[in-house]
Amino acid sequence: MRKNLGRQTMKLEHPPSIVGHGTIVGKKEHDGPLSSWFDDYCQDDRFGEDSWEKAESSMQEQALDKALSRAEKTADDLDFMMAGDLLNQCISSSFAARSRNVPFLGLYGACSTMGESLALSSLLLNGGFGSYAAAVTSSHFCTAERQYRTPLEYGGQRPPTAQWTATAAGALILQADGTAPPYVTHVTIGKIVDKGITDANSMGPAMAPAAFDTIFTHFKETGRTPADYDLIVTGDLGSLGKDILIDFFNDEGMNIAPNYDDCGVLLFDAEKQDVHCGGSGCGCAASVFAGYLLARLKNRELNRILFCPTGALLSPTTTQQGESIPSVAHAVVISNSKD
Amino acid sequence: MRKNLGRQTMKLEHPPSIVGHGTIVGKKEHDGPLSSWFDDYCQDDRFGEDSWEKAESSMQEQALDKALSRAEKTADDLDFMMAGDLLNQCISSSFAARSRNVPFLGLYGACSTMGESLALSSLLLNGGFGSYAAAVTSSHFCTAERQYRTPLEYGGQRPPTAQWTATAAGALILQADGTAPPYVTHVTIGKIVDKGITDANSMGPAMAPAAFDTIFTHFKETGRTPADYDLIVTGDLGSLGKDILIDFFNDEGMNIAPNYDDCGVLLFDAEKQDVHCGGSGCGCAASVFAGYLLARLKNRELNRILFCPTGALLSPTTTQQGESIPSVAHAVVISNSKD
Repeated sequence: MRKNLGRQTMKLEHPPSIVGHGTIVGKKEHDGPLSSWFDDYCQDDRFGEDSWEKAESSMQEQALDKALSRAEKTADDLDFMMAGDLLNQCISSSFAARSRNVPFLGLYGACSTMGESLALSSLLLNGGFGSYAAAVTSSHFCTAERQYRTPLEYGGQRPPTAQWTATAAGALILQADGTAPPYVTHVTIGKIVDKGITDANSMGPAMAPAAFDTIFTHFKETGRTPADYDLIVTGDLGSLGKDILIDFFNDEGMNIAPNYDDCGVLLFDAEKQDVHCGGSGCGCAASVFAGYLLARLKNRELNRILFCPTGALLSPTTTQQGESIPSVAHAVVISNSKD
Repeated sequence: MRKNLGRQTMKLEHPPSIVGHGTIVGKKEHDGPLSSWFDDYCQDDRFGEDSWEKAESSMQEQALDKALSRAEKTADDLDFMMAGDLLNQCISSSFAARSRNVPFLGLYGACSTMGESLALSSLLLNGGFGSYAAAVTSSHFCTAERQYRTPLEYGGQRPPTAQWTATAAGALILQADGTAPPYVTHVTIGKIVDKGITDANSMGPAMAPAAFDTIFTHFKETGRTPADYDLIVTGDLGSLGKDILIDFFNDEGMNIAPNYDDCGVLLFDAEKQDVHCGGSGCGCAASVFAGYLLARLKNRELNRILFCPTGALLSPTTTQQGESIPSVAHAVVISNSKD
């Protein structure tokens, strides 16, 4: 009965295919190095809505529509949708889904949410629950900034370790018992790791230990090494967290640097775009994966990647109460072959 | 491959058993009619912590410990834990889990979260992913009140349609391929339903249409009727929402009233305890189910129940922006037999 390779990792017997993807980003993300890989962008961060929160919901809807149209499906074909975002009570997701008539499961994993939704959707489809599923996440610089930090108009200064919350939404459509690549072949569910970082402007260092724990466990439980992947890519550790993760693996005698990157580093040109340590937010890993990385898998530049979105599970209240930052990372293998 | 009875309902081929349960409540919940069914309570709503938020995390930890000890397991035996709560960024759950060394999946379904975690955990175990899982949720009157409404010290008046957020945590331990009752036999995943209610103090009327949609779909997809259940129990529609749900079913020619109740109605003595329409919060359905209803299943007063926690997916921001209240409900069948 039990099918795990280890406590945290499962190899999917019936790997689902990713049959549709959609990405919608803001102007700043469009101006970055991955510009040409995104489906659409908006000039004014409002997407025609009268609040940023409504704009973020609209981005999720548009990303889902794009992904469904690529899959040649409608929302009625979906057996379920898993979605999440950074806003209090995950409103971007539930408001985006309310017009869709789709069985809905809300998730919260902060910026790891695309990893969680891709992992859980794949496990459910592998278990025979449904034929098609959607995994959707988003973030928005303006909604996140005013919720977590200060009003935009205040113009608060950002320390060098800070990251820039991406205005971006990504959607993926999964098909059970996939017949065409890319496939989701393995899932590693992460534990919460908290090494005592208390600076809410230093997310990379807070999340790097969680990414290490999940990826190292993945190697241990699958018997694989970094060389088995064309690319290992974390969610949004940013440049500082990326360096720390490389160091952690060096300490274990493993050099991941040659085939490792981070979605937060890939999304922006840190120097020209003034984003300090790079991008972050649920939409960062979602859009970089659904836009750029999936395209590189499809054109066979990459054939097997370990995608590991990372999340910092703090809130402004916990920071005010002096708490450190618990973090989590979930890893998913996406491959052009079924193993 | 595909095992659904319908788009939303799955019959579990390998029903997991509920092998452990734990419930921790506040003083007011302890003073209510279900007092004797809870494991422990706290006099001062702080549980020895220096903030209400930390107290809510502590309640989750204590409920999980109690459930694990009943199951004669430790956290190291768990293959994963699914948890959620009402607080921004679901901090009660992630902070409770960070000391546990357990693969963690955070969920957000507002007060429906125990339905979502029980459903998803059961589906994963049924699919062969792991041997033991925990489903945990909580809410706390003081953390919820200051987050969603006004500071407690303000003493704001509550309209008659309001409900009282329960100070309560519930935890369940599930065993794959269960060998002893009660079993989780069916799962129905709900859609988001929003009938345009905008009053954030009127959650019952907002959530009743979602409960109806899920339960009615459950009957349709399983071919069952209300008479097939000893008890149909919603999460926390409260007395007003309960009446509305009975009306909705009457309109369809089905009388659920004789074997229908609501956890929000059961938890408090509405008249004596001044809770207006009854209890609410992620901890309400969790504690009433894990404490009272599970005991009645175990002593065979009840043999098959349809447990349907309900959630209102609003936030203070969406209310301020004039939005209506999207709601969701997930239903789970718990039975002393495997069908």
